[in-house]
Amino acid sequence: MQDQFWGRRTWCLVTGASQGIGRSLAVAFAQRCAAGSHLVLLARSMDGLEQTRVLVTAANPEVTAQIHSVDLSQPSAEVFKHLLRDEGGGEYELHMLVHNAGSVGRTDQRAADMDDPDEWGRYMSLNLYHVTCLTAEFLRRFPSGHRCVLNITSLCALQPFKSMGYYCVGKAAREMYFRVLAKENAELNVLSYSPGPVDTDMISEVIQTIGDKETKQMFVTMKDSRQLVTLEQTTQKLVAVLASQKYNSGDRFDYFDPHVE
Amino acid sequence: MQDQFWGRRTWCLVTGASQGIGRSLAVAFAQRCAAGSHLVLLARSMDGLEQTRVLVTAANPEVTAQIHSVDLSQPSAEVFKHLLRDEGGGEYELHMLVHNAGSVGRTDQRAADMDDPDEWGRYMSLNLYHVTCLTAEFLRRFPSGHRCVLNITSLCALQPFKSMGYYCVGKAAREMYFRVLAKENAELNVLSYSPGPVDTDMISEVIQTIGDKETKQMFVTMKDSRQLVTLEQTTQKLVAVLASQKYNSGDRFDYFDPHVE
Repeated sequence: MQDQFWGRRTWCLVTGASQGIGRSLAVAFAQRCAAGSHLVLLARSMDGLEQTRVLVTAANPEVTAQIHSVDLSQPSAEVFKHLLRDEGGGEYELHMLVHNAGSVGRTDQRAADMDDPDEWGRYMSLNLYHVTCLTAEFLRRFPSGHRCVLNITSLCALQPFKSMGYYCVGKAAREMYFRVLAKENAELNVLSYSPGPVDTDMISEVIQTIGDKETKQMFVTMKDSRQLVTLEQTTQKLVAVLASQKYNSGDRFDYFDPHVE
Repeated sequence: MQDQFWGRRTWCLVTGASQGIGRSLAVAFAQRCAAGSHLVLLARSMDGLEQTRVLVTAANPEVTAQIHSVDLSQPSAEVFKHLLRDEGGGEYELHMLVHNAGSVGRTDQRAADMDDPDEWGRYMSLNLYHVTCLTAEFLRRFPSGHRCVLNITSLCALQPFKSMGYYCVGKAAREMYFRVLAKENAELNVLSYSPGPVDTDMISEVIQTIGDKETKQMFVTMKDSRQLVTLEQTTQKLVAVLASQKYNSGDRFDYFDPHVE
């Protein structure tokens, strides 16, 4: 079945594309793009990006992909401008910006000890400030046409979890930024997607480092009882939500939300 | 009627106490505190603080008040430690921390232009980082007993408004911080209070500077048709909500929410 969203000649930038959800989205999106589409993949790890590029071009040999190692915790308008000039030499029917990069933050620290402005500044640079800076440059580079901005968010944007203060605050702030952006720009296609508890390195890291026993046990139980969502499941759900376009710009959609085809 | 919350010998710190809601809360709280209570009033403006102190001691001559000029956009654990040593020479039955200070942020800038990490850093220092730093020092200074932490929030923490991106993001982030704090510390009494659209200098400033015509008109209409809430109304509502204690720690309460006595 042909949908309204996929199958177009697409320019798509994905942050955090060297692993996990970012990689999975890059590959799945490439598969659904028309010939001549171009992906721009950002992350710190060049090795991880190389592997993602191999997977992308294997999934769709008619798509090109450029990779760029960049530290998003040090946002720079100049660097972003440069990356956005990477056009792959085409004209596109759809421009996508996928904000996937982010970090959990210190999970060994309780809210009552989150007292260091510098630690906050580093966390918010990587999880909010670079997002707003890159979005601004994206919209300047592509001032018209169909532009879709995806924000990978979390249940933590809505609900507090013990020992996950940075993550909860960062995701809540980031989601509100995209709601304001959508409200101010009715012509944009903005979606915050909460992928569910996905079986990635991030979950393993949280289990190893988190201070709170209750939250830790929640993740351990999910992992042991195979309740974690797979990369494939959450990626396909997002692909389907985008295909259906059954959301209003600025909405959030959670993996567990009922999906109207 | 005697309630469970007021009437105790109270130590209470209020930020942004030189004007508006901060001043109004300081005076109203002082009226309801027992003899020997002590208020610590923070803001930048020494003149404004002096006037608040006069009003506080006039409202209740048995309460002492100390004022301190401090720039909360430059949070310093050392400064906060020093301020928290201002005990007024007593022993207290209740310790209160009232996070009222905050700023609207640039309302001439749309989300699509909020691209400056330094601007973000300044905004979040004043609206989030100092809040977490001061809370941490407060809880270290008063590690036990009845401790009440109030966060003055806004409808903007829940709903996006055009041209108010900084304020929406900052309030959403700040409210989530307090929800995590409450969840992690069941013994604390944490409340986010949304005072409604209060007729303060902040509203006048927004009307003068805001870029978006729709949001501007909303505030102008509220002001012209006297729909704005008065300081007295919103202060009395908060006093009553605290008296009733009909909330769970970490909850938000809005001026327009139905109040169960």
